[in-house]
Amino acid sequence: MQCDTVWKDARLATMAGDDLGIIDHGLIAARDGIILYAGPKSGAPAFDAARTVRCEGRWITPGLIDCHTHLVHGGNRAREFEMRLEGASYEAIARAGGGILSTMKATRAAGEAELIASALPRLDALIAEGVTTVEVKSGYGLDVASEMRMLRAARRLGAERPVRIETSFLGAHALPPEFAGDADGYIAMLCDELMPQVAASGLADAVDAFCEGIGFTSEQTRRLFEAAARHGLPVKLHAEQLSNLHGAALAAEFGALSADHLEYLDESGIAAMGRAGTVATLLPGAYYFVRETKLPPIEGLRRAGVPIALATDCNPGTSPLTSLLLVMNMGATLFRLTVAECLAGVTRNAARALGLGERIGTIEAGKSCDLAIWDIESPAELVYRMGFNPLHARIWSGQ
Amino acid sequence: MQCDTVWKDARLATMAGDDLGIIDHGLIAARDGIILYAGPKSGAPAFDAARTVRCEGRWITPGLIDCHTHLVHGGNRAREFEMRLEGASYEAIARAGGGILSTMKATRAAGEAELIASALPRLDALIAEGVTTVEVKSGYGLDVASEMRMLRAARRLGAERPVRIETSFLGAHALPPEFAGDADGYIAMLCDELMPQVAASGLADAVDAFCEGIGFTSEQTRRLFEAAARHGLPVKLHAEQLSNLHGAALAAEFGALSADHLEYLDESGIAAMGRAGTVATLLPGAYYFVRETKLPPIEGLRRAGVPIALATDCNPGTSPLTSLLLVMNMGATLFRLTVAECLAGVTRNAARALGLGERIGTIEAGKSCDLAIWDIESPAELVYRMGFNPLHARIWSGQ
Ligand SMILES: [Zn+2]
Ligand SMILES: [Zn+2]
Repeated sequence: MQCDTVWKDARLATMAGDDLGIIDHGLIAARDGIILYAGPKSGAPAFDAARTVRCEGRWITPGLIDCHTHLVHGGNRAREFEMRLEGASYEAIARAGGGILSTMKATRAAGEAELIASALPRLDALIAEGVTTVEVKSGYGLDVASEMRMLRAARRLGAERPVRIETSFLGAHALPPEFAGDADGYIAMLCDELMPQVAASGLADAVDAFCEGIGFTSEQTRRLFEAAARHGLPVKLHAEQLSNLHGAALAAEFGALSADHLEYLDESGIAAMGRAGTVATLLPGAYYFVRETKLPPIEGLRRAGVPIALATDCNPGTSPLTSLLLVMNMGATLFRLTVAECLAGVTRNAARALGLGERIGTIEAGKSCDLAIWDIESPAELVYRMGFNPLHARIWSGQ
Repeated sequence: MQCDTVWKDARLATMAGDDLGIIDHGLIAARDGIILYAGPKSGAPAFDAARTVRCEGRWITPGLIDCHTHLVHGGNRAREFEMRLEGASYEAIARAGGGILSTMKATRAAGEAELIASALPRLDALIAEGVTTVEVKSGYGLDVASEMRMLRAARRLGAERPVRIETSFLGAHALPPEFAGDADGYIAMLCDELMPQVAASGLADAVDAFCEGIGFTSEQTRRLFEAAARHGLPVKLHAEQLSNLHGAALAAEFGALSADHLEYLDESGIAAMGRAGTVATLLPGAYYFVRETKLPPIEGLRRAGVPIALATDCNPGTSPLTSLLLVMNMGATLFRLTVAECLAGVTRNAARALGLGERIGTIEAGKSCDLAIWDIESPAELVYRMGFNPLHARIWSGQ
C-alpha cells in the first residue's frame, strides 16, 4: 500500500480505548496527513513509503492538545504578582491598574499584529513540548472591534505555525467599564450585536462564558447559550471555579462540549455532565497559582464516567503557564490523577472537549497524523518529571 | 582600557547589595572571564573591546546557580510515582523495588560514562535556562567505589559542558544494605575509609549528610562533620525536612555553608544559623512533590537575617525537577517569597551556600563573568511565569 511516511521501531501509547493503548513493537503509516495504519508491526500491511523513520524504540503518543487557553492577550501581570507578594491589597493593586481590566486595556491598545507577535512565544513554548492543537479564547477585548480582532489574531496563529487552532468566543469573560452596572445590557449586546458578527465571520468554533459571582449569572449565561444555539455554535463554560452557581448543569443542559475549572462542582452537576457527555476540563495551573485549596471532585467525576481533560488555562492573571507537561505533573501531584488519566486529559479527552474526538486525540487509522515522539523509557516519565522536555520530534498532519 | 567583550544597551539586575541592584542603562566589560566593570554606561571608562554585544534593552542577571542537586544518579523512579498515584502502599512500592535503594542499585550498576550520559540531559535543561553553576552531590553509591565514581562523574560534567560544577560528598545519605542495623559502623567507614580518599582525590568541595529519622542521627552527623573538619572540608546538611533533630544548629556549630530543606526548623535553629552565617537553602520542588504542608519558617529567617537560597534538589525520588525558573515560581507561590528574594535565592545567596560568594552570584567587578540575558520587560517575569523560558543568551566565564 502506498503512503507518505512510515514510523517504525516505535513503542506506541495510542490512547485509543480506555487506557494508554500500549503497543510495544508499533508501526504508524500516514498518507495526506491522515493515519492509514497504527498498530503492531506484525499485523501491518506492506507499505510502499516515500519516507521511513526509524524510531529506535522511542515512545510515540498522540500530539498533545491544550484545550483551554487565553493565549492571545496584551501585556502581562508580573507587576501585580510582584505587588501581591509584597503584601499589597487588592485595592492597592486595582489602584495601580492591575486586575483583568489591565489586560483588557493592553489588549484593546494592541493591534492584530502585536497580539499575534506577543502570543507566538507562548505558542512556541507549547509546540516545543509536542502540542499540535491549541484552543484560544477571546475575552479581553470586551467590545465588538477588540473581540473580533482577538479572534482574527487567534486564527492567524494557525497560519504562522504548524498547529491546529480552535477558537472560542468569550465575550462574557468580564464586564467592560462601558457597561458598569448593566451586565444585562452587555449580555444583550453580545447576543444581538457581537455574536451575529462572530458567527457570520466563522472566526469562532465555540462560545464560552465565565459563570461566577465576579463574572455573569447563570441567567445571563443561559441567554448567551440560547443565542449560541440560534447560530449553531457549540458551547463550553468556566463553571464552579470560586463558588457553585450550578453552571456545569446549565452547560450540560445545552449539551456543552466541556465545563471547565469545577473546584466547587457538586453531585447534581456531575450527574448532569455525565448524562450530557460534557467533558470536565480541569485547570491545575490556576488552582496552584491562586493557591486554591478546594479540590475538584475527582472521585465523583470518575464514578459518573465524566471524561477528564487537563489544560494550561494560559492567561496573564491566574495561570501564566505554557507547559502542558507541567500541567500533567500538577494533575497528578495536586489532583492525584493517575498517569493514564493525565495523558488522556491532554489527548483523547482534550480532543473531545473541543468536539474533535473523531479527528484527533488518539493514534488510530482515519485520524489526523498528529504525533509526539519522546526520549523516554515509559509514558509515566511525561507526568513524573518537572521542567524537563524529552520531546524528540513532533509531527503535525503527517509532517 | 582593553577588554575582551563589552555588553551595552542592557538593563542590569546586578543582585549586588541587598536588592535587585537595578541599573537601567547598563554596561558590562570583561577580560579573561572576569568582570572589569559593571554599572551605568555614563560612569564607564572608555573600553577598547575585541567584541561588543548590543543587548537592545534586554535584561541581564547573574548566571543562575543551582546550589543543591542530586543530578548524577542511575535510573528514574517514574514507576514508583505511577504506583503511588494508583494507591500502592509504601510496602508494595518497596516490594516492587522502589525507594532510594532502587536508585542506589541503578547507580551502582552504572559505569562512570553511563552516569555522565544520563546526567547530561538534566544538566542541559538547567543550562538552557541560564544556569552557570551547579552543585552535584554523591550519595546513591553508598560504598567506596560507587561514591568515588559518582564524584568523578560529577566533576566530569564540568568538562563536558561550559558550566561550573561544585561537588558535595553525601555518603551519609542513606544506610546501604551491607550495613543494615549498623549505622554507626557505616559512619565509621565513611569517616575512616571513604572520606580520606575523597579528600585526597580533591573530588569533593564539601561534605553533606541527611540528618533525619530515616537518615542519620545528629550524633552520627557530628562525627562526620568532625572528620570533614580534620580534612579541611566545609560542611552542609539536609536538616529539618521531616522532623526537628536540631540539625541546623549542629550545622551552624560547624560553620556550615548551608542547611537545606528546613520545613521543621525552630527558633533556636534559626538563631544559630543567623550567628554562624549559614545559608538557608529552601527546596520548594521537594515540598511540592511530596505534598508537604508544613512551610519553612520564612518570617523567622527574614527577622534573623539568614540568607535564603533556592535550589531544584533535582533527584529521582522527591524532586525530579530541572528548572530553576520553576523553583523561583514555587518559592513565590508556595513560600510567598518576594521577587527579589527569589532572584537572590538563585544568584547571590546560592553562591554563598557554595562558599563562592566572593567569586560568583552578582554582577560586580572582580567576579566571574557569568551572565544570563533575558527577553523580558522586568525581572519579576522570571518568577511570575510557569514553564516558559525567556533566555536570550548565556555567558559563562566571559564566553
Ligand atoms: Zn479560562
Ligand atoms: Zn537533597
